[in-house]
Amino acid sequence: MSTRDVAKDLVALCAAGKFMESGDKYWAENVVSIESAEGPMARLEGKAAVRSKSEWWEGAHDVHDAKVEGPYVNGAQFVVRFKMDMTVKETGARMTMDEIGLYTVADGKIVEERFFYG
Amino acid sequence: MSTRDVAKDLVALCAAGKFMESGDKYWAENVVSIESAEGPMARLEGKAAVRSKSEWWEGAHDVHDAKVEGPYVNGAQFVVRFKMDMTVKETGARMTMDEIGLYTVADGKIVEERFFYG
Repeated sequence: MSTRDVAKDLVALCAAGKFMESGDKYWAENVVSIESAEGPMARLEGKAAVRSKSEWWEGAHDVHDAKVEGPYVNGAQFVVRFKMDMTVKETGARMTMDEIGLYTVADGKIVEERFFYG
Repeated sequence: MSTRDVAKDLVALCAAGKFMESGDKYWAENVVSIESAEGPMARLEGKAAVRSKSEWWEGAHDVHDAKVEGPYVNGAQFVVRFKMDMTVKETGARMTMDEIGLYTVADGKIVEERFFYG
């Protein structure tokens, strides 16, 4: 699969709310996931660890609406924008998260995902 | 200047239509500019070459309206989204360009800019 094919399918899955499924389908075994905030989730390596982060995230937030824009492609990388209307369950705070994901693809799998925040 | 400071100022300049000024202010002497399309502008190195590309671009297009979103920051990198309503002068074709710029900062200057298209 080309970078654009992976990118388009990932966007379609996310737009349908299938975030975890998109990861299960495209994370490489050695995927690295990089957040901008410091802390235990700043850099996770390996599909199991990255999947755990997603499970934690899905459990900790109620997503009311997600807008997914993209993909934007350049070579082996692509960009997706996520705008989510969500509630943080622990605090009850409702907020809009505006996030950019930068993905690097090798052999049809995502080997790195890096998240940027507005 | 922090990455976020550079990012915010670049976005403010671009939102004011000052694209070239933002480059003059923040391109490092050894900046590398990477497009997704193949060809002579696929990879340009050095402030003079990158500036020439911008000059060509500005001369070849009429920008009617530009929407600039961001910045989105992660470490030494930031992302900006550009949505431009423009006309290609040579053909007269009016179009909307939806573009993502990924910038890498070192010592308060942009050392790499990489563009992604929708």
